[in-house]
Amino acid sequence: MKIAIAGAGAMGSRFGVKLQSAGNQVTLIDNWVDHVTTIQRQGLTVTTDDGADHVYQMTAKRPQDVTESFDLVILFTKAMQMDQMLQQLSGVLGNHPIVLTLANGIGNIETIERHVPKDHVVAGTTVWSSSLTGPGHITVTGTGSISLQAMVPAKFPDLSGLIATLNDAGLNASPADNVLAAIWKKAGLNSVLNTYCTLFDCNIAEFGSLPNWRTLNDAVLNEFAAVAQAAKIQFSAADVTALIAAQFDPDKNGGHYPSMHQDMAKKRPTEIDFLNGYVARLGAKLNVPAPTNALLAQLIHSQESLKGIK
Amino acid sequence: MKIAIAGAGAMGSRFGVKLQSAGNQVTLIDNWVDHVTTIQRQGLTVTTDDGADHVYQMTAKRPQDVTESFDLVILFTKAMQMDQMLQQLSGVLGNHPIVLTLANGIGNIETIERHVPKDHVVAGTTVWSSSLTGPGHITVTGTGSISLQAMVPAKFPDLSGLIATLNDAGLNASPADNVLAAIWKKAGLNSVLNTYCTLFDCNIAEFGSLPNWRTLNDAVLNEFAAVAQAAKIQFSAADVTALIAAQFDPDKNGGHYPSMHQDMAKKRPTEIDFLNGYVARLGAKLNVPAPTNALLAQLIHSQESLKGIK
Repeated sequence: MKIAIAGAGAMGSRFGVKLQSAGNQVTLIDNWVDHVTTIQRQGLTVTTDDGADHVYQMTAKRPQDVTESFDLVILFTKAMQMDQMLQQLSGVLGNHPIVLTLANGIGNIETIERHVPKDHVVAGTTVWSSSLTGPGHITVTGTGSISLQAMVPAKFPDLSGLIATLNDAGLNASPADNVLAAIWKKAGLNSVLNTYCTLFDCNIAEFGSLPNWRTLNDAVLNEFAAVAQAAKIQFSAADVTALIAAQFDPDKNGGHYPSMHQDMAKKRPTEIDFLNGYVARLGAKLNVPAPTNALLAQLIHSQESLKGIK
Repeated sequence: MKIAIAGAGAMGSRFGVKLQSAGNQVTLIDNWVDHVTTIQRQGLTVTTDDGADHVYQMTAKRPQDVTESFDLVILFTKAMQMDQMLQQLSGVLGNHPIVLTLANGIGNIETIERHVPKDHVVAGTTVWSSSLTGPGHITVTGTGSISLQAMVPAKFPDLSGLIATLNDAGLNASPADNVLAAIWKKAGLNSVLNTYCTLFDCNIAEFGSLPNWRTLNDAVLNEFAAVAQAAKIQFSAADVTALIAAQFDPDKNGGHYPSMHQDMAKKRPTEIDFLNGYVARLGAKLNVPAPTNALLAQLIHSQESLKGIK
């Protein structure tokens, strides 16, 4: 299969390596010039669990240099860069590839559907992880899985073919019944842990040790539940709360600083507008007030400003 | 006049010195043992604008050692220590002195009226300032004024006598028409500047430079206005906003870190429950939701916990 990875950072690069190793023809597409030219010059370096470095020769391009057509485009840009990437790839998308998004944050599907016919879109969530060590260099740990669903199942003839392609690459994909609910569940978790850990500059275990973490948690998730209900999306604040509490163990995820904390520390814009900020905006549209999520989005934007992040 | 200063920290000590210098018999009362014993042993040291140190011999006692009666008790404890101080002084208050409070925060009057007949209570606001350099040592800058009002004007025979006593000591006191409105105005200012500067670890000018400071400001003050209206207290969000904007100039107050920021930095409990927290509680009682102020109070309590403040 001819596959484009649009947004080939930490996660996109990891997926690209696995899909190429399984025999697919993969192109990594990214706007970060240093990253693209490093891969072109010396390949992509992958540091694995055991500390060993592996170098893969990969095709890497900037969006404006992509002219060929693809069977599948996997979108892995940050939520706030997705619209720009889709505009840059408008020529490529004219050939009607399947478009798969596994990116974090709510609202990505709406963004994609402004550029791609809905019946070509597959959305999902993944618990694979990866971090970008530097240009042309990622560090990967553990394994993961993917859960996905076509946006218009009746018009999407070969989901099992797509799943087979992903599973041939060892990506552990399986079909989901309600991918929107899964996206909201993950966004609910991130809108609590990412946001508060960033605001307080603390790790997940420290957040869990706060005497009032449940009050903070409930203030966010009760508004999620109310907005989800108005938007007819399945959401259980209790389920997400249980998932959050399961992250506190310092021997498991507790010592971890969420990705938004890492973005803030490295002075990169955060995804807050596609987490708490998205729910605040959707709530306003549906006349369901979400003042807690609105304030938290503003507070994170203030912190970005104080750090000089634009 | 026999005057007790109950809560003889930075502000109480400054008032005590001025009132004693004007010929009154002043007793400083405080629960901080080091502070009291230092004053007993070597007097109170006051560093003035010009950097000079002045030492005043003052009577200083812990509350449990106070047995005499007073004409006037000036309460200058932090809001969250006021109830305890009033309990400790119950014997002293049995002699029905006038009780004057100029302390920051809303809700102090309710606390006092649980211990003192309402017609003995005078409340006010002051813009005098002072900081506690160490035990038995304060640093003072500039001048200030006091605005005050009897809680039951008809039953308070000699407000002008009290004002004369304060003015003989150079404290620039004048009567107020609506002291509750003045307390809410100051609390509104503090609930924006103190709270956000503490949360973001920034000074007043940095807060004022945020592109979204008005959004943050309005989220707090619009709830203040709604709760004040339900409680029949005069409050103008626009007036407080103008007062806040006037503090941003880096050549004036802009470089200043508000007192709550200093409390947090020095690992002391903050007065948040008598600012944003008070409005959230009163709003809940009056069925006027104040979710922004409720969340901000929780966020500051979380920061206290992370700093190990109990």
